[in-house]
Amino acid sequence: MNIPSRIEHLRAEMAHHNITAYLVPSSDPHQSEYVAPRWQTRAWLSGFTGSAGTLIVTAEGAGVWTDSRYFIQGEAQLAGSGITLERQQVPHAPEHVDWLVENLRAGQQLGFDGRVVSLSQARFLEEKLSTKGIKLNAKYDLAANFWEDRPKVPTSEVYAFDTAYAGQSRAEKLTEIRTWLTKVGVDAVLLVALDEIAWTLNIRAADVAFNPVCLSYLLVTKNDAQWFVGKERIDQKLSTALKEDGVEVADYSKIETALQNFPASQQLAIDPTTLSYRFYELLAGKDLKESGSPVVMMKAIKNKTEIQHFRNVMCKDGVALLRLFRWLEKTLKTTTVTEVEISERLAEFRSQQNLYKGESFPAIVGYNGNGAIVHYHAEPATCASLNASGILLLDSGGQYLDGTTDITRTVALGSTTMEQRRHFTLVLKGMIALSKARFPKGTGGAQLDTMARQFLWQEGLDYGHGTGHGVGFFLNVHEGPQGFATSAVTSRGRTALQPGMVTSNEPGFYRTGHYGIRIENLILCVEDRSTDYGNFLRFETLTLFPIDRRLLQLDMLSEEERKWLNDYHQQVLAGILPLLKEDEERTWLRQQCQPL
Amino acid sequence: MNIPSRIEHLRAEMAHHNITAYLVPSSDPHQSEYVAPRWQTRAWLSGFTGSAGTLIVTAEGAGVWTDSRYFIQGEAQLAGSGITLERQQVPHAPEHVDWLVENLRAGQQLGFDGRVVSLSQARFLEEKLSTKGIKLNAKYDLAANFWEDRPKVPTSEVYAFDTAYAGQSRAEKLTEIRTWLTKVGVDAVLLVALDEIAWTLNIRAADVAFNPVCLSYLLVTKNDAQWFVGKERIDQKLSTALKEDGVEVADYSKIETALQNFPASQQLAIDPTTLSYRFYELLAGKDLKESGSPVVMMKAIKNKTEIQHFRNVMCKDGVALLRLFRWLEKTLKTTTVTEVEISERLAEFRSQQNLYKGESFPAIVGYNGNGAIVHYHAEPATCASLNASGILLLDSGGQYLDGTTDITRTVALGSTTMEQRRHFTLVLKGMIALSKARFPKGTGGAQLDTMARQFLWQEGLDYGHGTGHGVGFFLNVHEGPQGFATSAVTSRGRTALQPGMVTSNEPGFYRTGHYGIRIENLILCVEDRSTDYGNFLRFETLTLFPIDRRLLQLDMLSEEERKWLNDYHQQVLAGILPLLKEDEERTWLRQQCQPL
Repeated sequence: MNIPSRIEHLRAEMAHHNITAYLVPSSDPHQSEYVAPRWQTRAWLSGFTGSAGTLIVTAEGAGVWTDSRYFIQGEAQLAGSGITLERQQVPHAPEHVDWLVENLRAGQQLGFDGRVVSLSQARFLEEKLSTKGIKLNAKYDLAANFWEDRPKVPTSEVYAFDTAYAGQSRAEKLTEIRTWLTKVGVDAVLLVALDEIAWTLNIRAADVAFNPVCLSYLLVTKNDAQWFVGKERIDQKLSTALKEDGVEVADYSKIETALQNFPASQQLAIDPTTLSYRFYELLAGKDLKESGSPVVMMKAIKNKTEIQHFRNVMCKDGVALLRLFRWLEKTLKTTTVTEVEISERLAEFRSQQNLYKGESFPAIVGYNGNGAIVHYHAEPATCASLNASGILLLDSGGQYLDGTTDITRTVALGSTTMEQRRHFTLVLKGMIALSKARFPKGTGGAQLDTMARQFLWQEGLDYGHGTGHGVGFFLNVHEGPQGFATSAVTSRGRTALQPGMVTSNEPGFYRTGHYGIRIENLILCVEDRSTDYGNFLRFETLTLFPIDRRLLQLDMLSEEERKWLNDYHQQVLAGILPLLKEDEERTWLRQQCQPL
Repeated sequence: MNIPSRIEHLRAEMAHHNITAYLVPSSDPHQSEYVAPRWQTRAWLSGFTGSAGTLIVTAEGAGVWTDSRYFIQGEAQLAGSGITLERQQVPHAPEHVDWLVENLRAGQQLGFDGRVVSLSQARFLEEKLSTKGIKLNAKYDLAANFWEDRPKVPTSEVYAFDTAYAGQSRAEKLTEIRTWLTKVGVDAVLLVALDEIAWTLNIRAADVAFNPVCLSYLLVTKNDAQWFVGKERIDQKLSTALKEDGVEVADYSKIETALQNFPASQQLAIDPTTLSYRFYELLAGKDLKESGSPVVMMKAIKNKTEIQHFRNVMCKDGVALLRLFRWLEKTLKTTTVTEVEISERLAEFRSQQNLYKGESFPAIVGYNGNGAIVHYHAEPATCASLNASGILLLDSGGQYLDGTTDITRTVALGSTTMEQRRHFTLVLKGMIALSKARFPKGTGGAQLDTMARQFLWQEGLDYGHGTGHGVGFFLNVHEGPQGFATSAVTSRGRTALQPGMVTSNEPGFYRTGHYGIRIENLILCVEDRSTDYGNFLRFETLTLFPIDRRLLQLDMLSEEERKWLNDYHQQVLAGILPLLKEDEERTWLRQQCQPL
């Protein structure tokens, strides 16, 4: 079945249900960052495979709304399909909703599958479309009726995550959640987000790419817990352990019945940002409390075991990067290397490290102008070849049983210009300012974000992304609630940093067509014990890898900044050196870490 | 009638209406910062005259909730009244509401006068108290029944504010509001806040202290406007001018009938933060849109005429301060001076300047330890006497027809310690960082606030107030929506700075019992034209007065900071010198402004 025929099938279904426009988002029923093939409906219907995009189909036309990083890919993939590429001005902005408001008429119906749209998103649609009298119909997953070879719900191996890594047992976590139930005055909480479930149950799997999670739902009540995952997926040993902790295993599809049967006399806590609109409709008439999920914060605040593992895993990850950069240096002396080769080699070097489980996200390998494309993904057919000149931006991370890493380094492959060094050093000054910041308890991410931007701002420069995101422990590399962001009203901007939170610190600068600069370490929020004046916090840097001095304009650093950099390089040396076996590697690292 | 007998009268009224607890806030029907005596009900009932405090009376007891700045005054004024002083942990926090939730029972009634409680505040009460089944009764102004000599609604002289100062005519402003009505799709807007009405109509008065406003309401529809102020208050000339601009004058008390008669077919825009709960009840069944008031933003963005006046008025205000500090220096050579004398003298020096209309707020004159009390107000009986040693914090401002000023300087009266200079210089570094900041359009106050705090934070120090507030043009010295504040969810923290906004920049540090340091200038947000990279903004400093170098630890300033200070002193010199007639004054100023 080709694309135009898929769209025609869809239109027939729409006509049958009296739906004027049908919307297909990029999401799964859990609002996951990485979506399993089963729910890649928009890609299957339209042929456009980018990670972000919204398909809207009417009787007369069809369009995919996506942002600038996918314009070229979108044009190519949509050519000849009869589907137009709708270029979004602002990534993630709901510009397709404005189109719907303008083009639909009162009384007409917008259809979408309520299973993959969250309650918050549906409310936003409702709010916008109701002003024009447009109605919503969330009942139908229309593609299901003609998507014959649709992939199944994934069933990768589910395994117990050892408390030696997790630091807290399943029973303790369930007790913590139940303490919260009592405090908030509810009888149960429904967990929908996959990383929250994995964290709570101390289990991991590989149902989707990059995030070691398992497709399921978890309903925790005061006395028991039901895990909707599929009995056949759980082996005897794990099954026994779960039973001992009072967790009953049920089928994934049984969640709908469980919600319908939820006692009318009890109150259920839900998180409108992950709960599907479909489930919300199933829960009609039930006593709901939109409290959000308690696991978001519990998971964000790492325990002592997780923190110690985080410190250790950074040494291993540093060794892998060291081997990659040494290999690159050597290779470029005689030949060229493609961006794709670099990401493959890096994954290979990481895989030689203990407890490695895979990449934590698709590595961004951006040479020269490609580095200026913030979400660049090198493809074999089109990627650039590096030689011993120019600038390379490398943003990558690994999943290990003992932690998740995410590091960006920007390195010179040859000589550097004054402008490159100025931009790199402005970015570095911001990165250092945030790394060595002290701040009172209660300070939020939007306040701290400024520290990383101020030196660029002072020169009229900026970068178009947040300065940092929370990072899970052998879980999602992007997690909430905290972060560093310019918007003070988002969770990332508003949430106060707390001891135990691990966040990325990654300012950048992008000179379109020329080069991209980003320097990223993970930093741990800790109590500041150096002063009696008040309740202050600071950061401990976790990530260990040298910062390229060839891109540094040394006289732009203050004495304190230079001292920070030298101290950091001492920390890098102390962490990585003991793991190196070859003299040459040790010499290379010592050179990179020499005091400035 | 003494206080206990007032409370007994109140209790009799409460019993009559079956009210278990009665709440008396510190507000007027317009949510004004300065409340006319007519609405100082809490002070009249309790005897406690502090500016902030909430009285709660039950059959068994009575208490006034207030914050630490009023603990001593509260104890003294409440002694023997039978009313207890309830010490708030956090200023402005609604701790009395927690008390009500804990102490009232389901079915009982909390009474308050819905005329002086805003819709937002009433909703907050409702939200908290309904969890316990406690009911609200907002019908009765109980004190009205036995407050025999209650002051009348003020009727100071109302005068037209010349367009030569205002920069925009009444007709233009009404047109701007009506454009907004069309854009938002409403038929009318009700203005409640007194400064919004004064701004819109280009009128001023002196109905309350410090803010040159007039007690009234303004209802603007697409075709006309009704000003509820009292016909007898408007002279023939102003009356004619208003009529020409389509503004009909009505009695203050007629607003209630007007709201009840508002056409059911039309939609009315309201601002829940200023609209009284009483009015909201009167409007029951009407079509309301809680859009907020458009005037908040129109008023905040100063026009070119206002901006030019702001620049000029700072020179005059600087002359007044120069005369005060010269007088102080001279006087302290031979005798002592009290804090109250300083504020009187300063008001006198300001009154010698052209177009002066009064103080913009009660001056804060804090000598040594008194300077560390953030909202200190010197009283003749208890204030400190200064001699030629120690540190003086002086925060004051003037109302002139051509602008409103607000300036804080902290000066040494004798020798200074290392610690004092270190604290002063940390505060100054923050003040300079914000003054010379560049930042992209869209940046909010909470992001910029960090710039002023970062140097103190780095040493584990902080201050317990926001870094700045909006300032009106010959209007309220404190106005919204913008500001610099640590909370990213308040209007002040969230609102993006825009060209034309005037905001105070006033970081501080307070060493309890020893000294307070605050340095405050008003700064104007302007477009930054120095770069091609993007849409950047910066600040122009408006306030002109030297910063005391005796408190400066010069080696703590970077080269850029020192340059900023020298440039600023050149700007001060250029602004003030031409207004000085005496050689001695010119010499004094030149000395204060010498390059460092």
